[in-house]
Amino acid sequence: MRSSKRQASQLRQVQITRRFTRHAEGSVLIEIGDTRVLCTASVEESVPPFLRGRGQGWVTAEYGMLPRSTHTRTGREAAKGKQSGRTQEIQRLIGRALRAVTDLKVLGERQITLDCDVLQADGGTRCAAITGAWLALNDACEHLLSQGKISKNPLRDQVAAISVGIYQGAAILDLDYAEDADCDTDMNVVMTGQQGIVEIQGTAEGNPFTRTQMDELLDLAATGIGELMAQQKAALHS
Amino acid sequence: MRSSKRQASQLRQVQITRRFTRHAEGSVLIEIGDTRVLCTASVEESVPPFLRGRGQGWVTAEYGMLPRSTHTRTGREAAKGKQSGRTQEIQRLIGRALRAVTDLKVLGERQITLDCDVLQADGGTRCAAITGAWLALNDACEHLLSQGKISKNPLRDQVAAISVGIYQGAAILDLDYAEDADCDTDMNVVMTGQQGIVEIQGTAEGNPFTRTQMDELLDLAATGIGELMAQQKAALHS
Amino acid sequence: MRSSKRQASQLRQVQITRRFTRHAEGSVLIEIGDTRVLCTASVEESVPPFLRGRGQGWVTAEYGMLPRSTHTRTGREAAKGKQSGRTQEIQRLIGRALRAVTDLKVLGERQITLDCDVLQADGGTRCAAITGAWLALNDACEHLLSQGKISKNPLRDQVAAISVGIYQGAAILDLDYAEDADCDTDMNVVMTGQQGIVEIQGTAEGNPFTRTQMDELLDLAATGIGELMAQQKAALHS
Amino acid sequence: MRSSKRQASQLRQVQITRRFTRHAEGSVLIEIGDTRVLCTASVEESVPPFLRGRGQGWVTAEYGMLPRSTHTRTGREAAKGKQSGRTQEIQRLIGRALRAVTDLKVLGERQITLDCDVLQADGGTRCAAITGAWLALNDACEHLLSQGKISKNPLRDQVAAISVGIYQGAAILDLDYAEDADCDTDMNVVMTGQQGIVEIQGTAEGNPFTRTQMDELLDLAATGIGELMAQQKAALHS
Amino acid sequence: MRSSKRQASQLRQVQITRRFTRHAEGSVLIEIGDTRVLCTASVEESVPPFLRGRGQGWVTAEYGMLPRSTHTRTGREAAKGKQSGRTQEIQRLIGRALRAVTDLKVLGERQITLDCDVLQADGGTRCAAITGAWLALNDACEHLLSQGKISKNPLRDQVAAISVGIYQGAAILDLDYAEDADCDTDMNVVMTGQQGIVEIQGTAEGNPFTRTQMDELLDLAATGIGELMAQQKAALHS
Amino acid sequence: MRSSKRQASQLRQVQITRRFTRHAEGSVLIEIGDTRVLCTASVEESVPPFLRGRGQGWVTAEYGMLPRSTHTRTGREAAKGKQSGRTQEIQRLIGRALRAVTDLKVLGERQITLDCDVLQADGGTRCAAITGAWLALNDACEHLLSQGKISKNPLRDQVAAISVGIYQGAAILDLDYAEDADCDTDMNVVMTGQQGIVEIQGTAEGNPFTRTQMDELLDLAATGIGELMAQQKAALHS
Repeated sequence: MRSSKRQASQLRQVQITRRFTRHAEGSVLIEIGDTRVLCTASVEESVPPFLRGRGQGWVTAEYGMLPRSTHTRTGREAAKGKQSGRTQEIQRLIGRALRAVTDLKVLGERQITLDCDVLQADGGTRCAAITGAWLALNDACEHLLSQGKISKNPLRDQVAAISVGIYQGAAILDLDYAEDADCDTDMNVVMTGQQGIVEIQGTAEGNPFTRTQMDELLDLAATGIGELMAQQKAALHS
Repeated sequence: MRSSKRQASQLRQVQITRRFTRHAEGSVLIEIGDTRVLCTASVEESVPPFLRGRGQGWVTAEYGMLPRSTHTRTGREAAKGKQSGRTQEIQRLIGRALRAVTDLKVLGERQITLDCDVLQADGGTRCAAITGAWLALNDACEHLLSQGKISKNPLRDQVAAISVGIYQGAAILDLDYAEDADCDTDMNVVMTGQQGIVEIQGTAEGNPFTRTQMDELLDLAATGIGELMAQQKAALHS
Repeated sequence: MRSSKRQASQLRQVQITRRFTRHAEGSVLIEIGDTRVLCTASVEESVPPFLRGRGQGWVTAEYGMLPRSTHTRTGREAAKGKQSGRTQEIQRLIGRALRAVTDLKVLGERQITLDCDVLQADGGTRCAAITGAWLALNDACEHLLSQGKISKNPLRDQVAAISVGIYQGAAILDLDYAEDADCDTDMNVVMTGQQGIVEIQGTAEGNPFTRTQMDELLDLAATGIGELMAQQKAALHS
Repeated sequence: MRSSKRQASQLRQVQITRRFTRHAEGSVLIEIGDTRVLCTASVEESVPPFLRGRGQGWVTAEYGMLPRSTHTRTGREAAKGKQSGRTQEIQRLIGRALRAVTDLKVLGERQITLDCDVLQADGGTRCAAITGAWLALNDACEHLLSQGKISKNPLRDQVAAISVGIYQGAAILDLDYAEDADCDTDMNVVMTGQQGIVEIQGTAEGNPFTRTQMDELLDLAATGIGELMAQQKAALHS
Repeated sequence: MRSSKRQASQLRQVQITRRFTRHAEGSVLIEIGDTRVLCTASVEESVPPFLRGRGQGWVTAEYGMLPRSTHTRTGREAAKGKQSGRTQEIQRLIGRALRAVTDLKVLGERQITLDCDVLQADGGTRCAAITGAWLALNDACEHLLSQGKISKNPLRDQVAAISVGIYQGAAILDLDYAEDADCDTDMNVVMTGQQGIVEIQGTAEGNPFTRTQMDELLDLAATGIGELMAQQKAALHS
Repeated sequence: MRSSKRQASQLRQVQITRRFTRHAEGSVLIEIGDTRVLCTASVEESVPPFLRGRGQGWVTAEYGMLPRSTHTRTGREAAKGKQSGRTQEIQRLIGRALRAVTDLKVLGERQITLDCDVLQADGGTRCAAITGAWLALNDACEHLLSQGKISKNPLRDQVAAISVGIYQGAAILDLDYAEDADCDTDMNVVMTGQQGIVEIQGTAEGNPFTRTQMDELLDLAATGIGELMAQQKAALHS
């Protein structure tokens, strides 16, 4: 029995709002249960120094949590003067996931920055960020296409992410905050529309996990990601 | 003629949503035209070192802008490793405005932090933050009251703020971003429900202004703040 | 009765020493009562990046307090690794005040930095800094003129500043530290020689203030600034 | 054909030197091919604030690279004033891996810090760090035991780590720098002596990977980790 | 021939003003030629953590240069967010020099901080700082004595410092900025009233120096320090 | 009697290992008793901005201690976010010492950075760093020569350094940590092969020292440095 009363393989309710804010080239609010992440895509007509003159673009991400997105207030990173290790780890993950499905040559010498800001947190924020950021990135690419700046959409595939875990001995999908705090193993899986694995990060918080458990987790993740991708597609056509 | 087509004394449309997020003791989304600020109030059962043992509480504020709340992306302060002078100036202003109407003795030895995060910016963000934060602060105070932690609401009065300016020679109310960028004088006024002035900050960006113009600006501000306070009251009863 | 025994409208004694140090293009020590601020103007033959190639100059300011300029020692900002919000707020104010009377086109593509360092503090340091910095800026402009780098002095007018406040219910001029700590409302006013208002910053530390009180404060400020400008002129001819 | 001429499942030569330096309670130099990491364990008789009074200890890790451990010099993090995201990610990983096999109650209210400093880098530094740090941690635990400070060794099991990857379509074990730079997928696997998985971090740098490839990678990793654990045991008895 | 026209062994004119500012327990402006340093001593009734409960006091120093104390403006360290290596080196030197003549047991559990701020620089600022800071420290000690907080003055001896150098092959005393920039060897010597050497820091900027040259330098330094100490004594009796 | 049982003029055992790591153009492990410092030289084909276009090169140094090189663990400077004053002082000293024997014109427009990282500390680390870094610098210069990038070795002479001190009234050579902690005067001397003095830094930690003691210290230092230079030469020919 999950504390959330959900079935082991049951995703939380997903809601996606495109054009949530008006200035960004892509702006998507993704809500997965009580987790809400605002993902904006900003296009800049230049690339970082290490890529100059190489005829390709770049996609990068930044992640942040509003101080009171969490149960108890978390100190503001801007006031502390630095981003935590966790923040940096997550934004590196989001950037890698999106670059995995982007043809950077097609994008040309420009950079798209995905800002993923958590308005409310209830577990799974990094996965929601990836899933929502792909949509914002796609909107920004379509914007470039409509302006004639690129000749085709550089996104080769969808990408989405979900968390899975071992909770009281059983594999479960899409952990909320309470389940995440209590589980033995927490794994984040990022996959493409072609079911290719882009990233897998599994950590045994309590007991180590077995190869058998790992297989169960990956099966669950593949199912969940499939559902998320259906939601991404539905949002594209709304 | 204002670029926004509004009358000189016309406020933008105001929309207030209480309980916008669920973890905070007070959580208010305030929208004034295209400016949207999320104001949350977080209660902490301790006070800063300089107040310990003095039998009173503290109210403070932090302010931030999401990187793509603006027309072009602004670098994330957490990534830069420091808050700008503008950010610090604004959060000090918000804190002072709220403390001006709070009986800190009644609050007792606890601190309430108002986080004002701009989701979308179109001028007047600091004024919207003050107006919205007062509602979030009030909700947090009511929460403490309902828990029996305090015996009465420590807020002695309402507080709200509005910007006024001299635009093409005339005094106008509630400047949006385009008007603010073009105006000669920009003034932010913070007032209480009793029409007391709590804070006034006027800056001549171009030509200096006269005492007569100043009087016109204060008249306009008083009118606008009156309307905002009516909206605050309406939101309290919704 | 003021704790300083001064009349409500009485300024402290003002003393201005030009060429206080020898390296800077302008160097003015201003003493207002026990407040002493050293203001130096440094010319640099380039402008900040955001102004390059626009055919205009820039005037900016930095502010600091020596650690023991205050009654009890204040930690050194260089050792703490950052400037406080108060410091940044003050240096932004000084810069805006000086730019309000400078024709930046006439200055040409160069920057003048005003360093305002408080040697001894007894209230009103930001106002003394503005009043003294205008003189240092003028000396630097005269220096450029004498070198043939500019064709006329880019200063269009004088600028000076004074603090006023409500102390025990009455409006008073030029608060010292003890009066400032005790007053209900503290207001800093920056005006030009033409009596135009450049900046006004009023804060009710205790009770909010009324429109009537505000008028009294502005009257007092106009008088005080008039006297300061007479002192500036006298210093120019010494 | 690997660029290193090794078989797909062939580990580089491993050399372990205990007591490499003399001050630390545990000090191990681990060399895996040309990768050399100095792992020291330092015991401190207190725990971080969040654990005080809870009757348990803590194990944490810090990671660093000497500036010229790499092919071209990398800027010193102490001089830059911050640790990179990569550094923080790695030191969090090392800490989690070691805590997974430590009974923190048995350790008591003390902290052991594992400093993993890379003297020379040729790929796989984080895995070498985990494998070497386990030995240093064990030596520090034995030291505490010999001093009578703890009643039994708090380590429940061995822990070791290895990298695997997809290189030119095939799964290979223990990538050196050149192979790592060229591979499609890079995966780090941390396992216990009981073959439990503690951590798995796989990233598709180029093409996404399939479930089948993932199984091959995990098989290879299990083999490699088995060999590393035999080396750990041999070092314990030397 | 020195560029300053002074004799090889000729000190610049020295002027000492005690009680230059009024808040500090000791406040001395020392002028040596065109070098001007304001030295203040601040008493704090506590000691740094590493000395608590050991029945002794501490003397420490901080050093800063006003941005335009130099020929061309130097960036403000508070704005840069850190103190340079040179600044830290100098403030450590000043602190050591003063502690060398202070009986810290007699001082009791309190700290005196010497702030040495350079108002105008023309070479020899660290030596002027030490010479002036000794006077400020003495004034602060006399203040403690007059308040009955200590039973005798904890200063055992005078301390003063001077720079010497090899300039165009010859040893010279008290280098100004122009001479310092041109000399081969620059040496700072700190001595007590008993002619004991407290600190010697010699650096060959160009050619290395010989033992013979070193002896000449030390002879010159001893003479110069003798004169400075006579000035210190004269200032004490003024 | 020294606590180390050594004669007053007896150096600790010296061991020098060239090519200790493989990526750097020069890599030397120097061991002096229990002090072990890894010195690497890295060539970069550009110079710092202040030297661009002046037809000369630059030699600079950075210094660090591994956290557990010391008896008790020292916090990692990269984690603290800044280098201590001591670290900066030492790396500036190392850089000056090496530049004193380098013909920067012959080096050409390139920079060599010497990283001196202390693996184990037992007193005298800065002196060991200078002595070892000279060898690493020489190896890097030979490397440039062998590549035809420079026409002759820019090193004009050897440079080495040793500490001396007054310990229980007597002058002793090459202090270890225990002796250093107990001595009255600590002096570091840097000399060239021609017996020229490059740098001398003497500090009276307890009693001031006399000219006679200073002469004894310099005699001891000259002897010790002579032995170190013999070791440098021997290492060059191994």
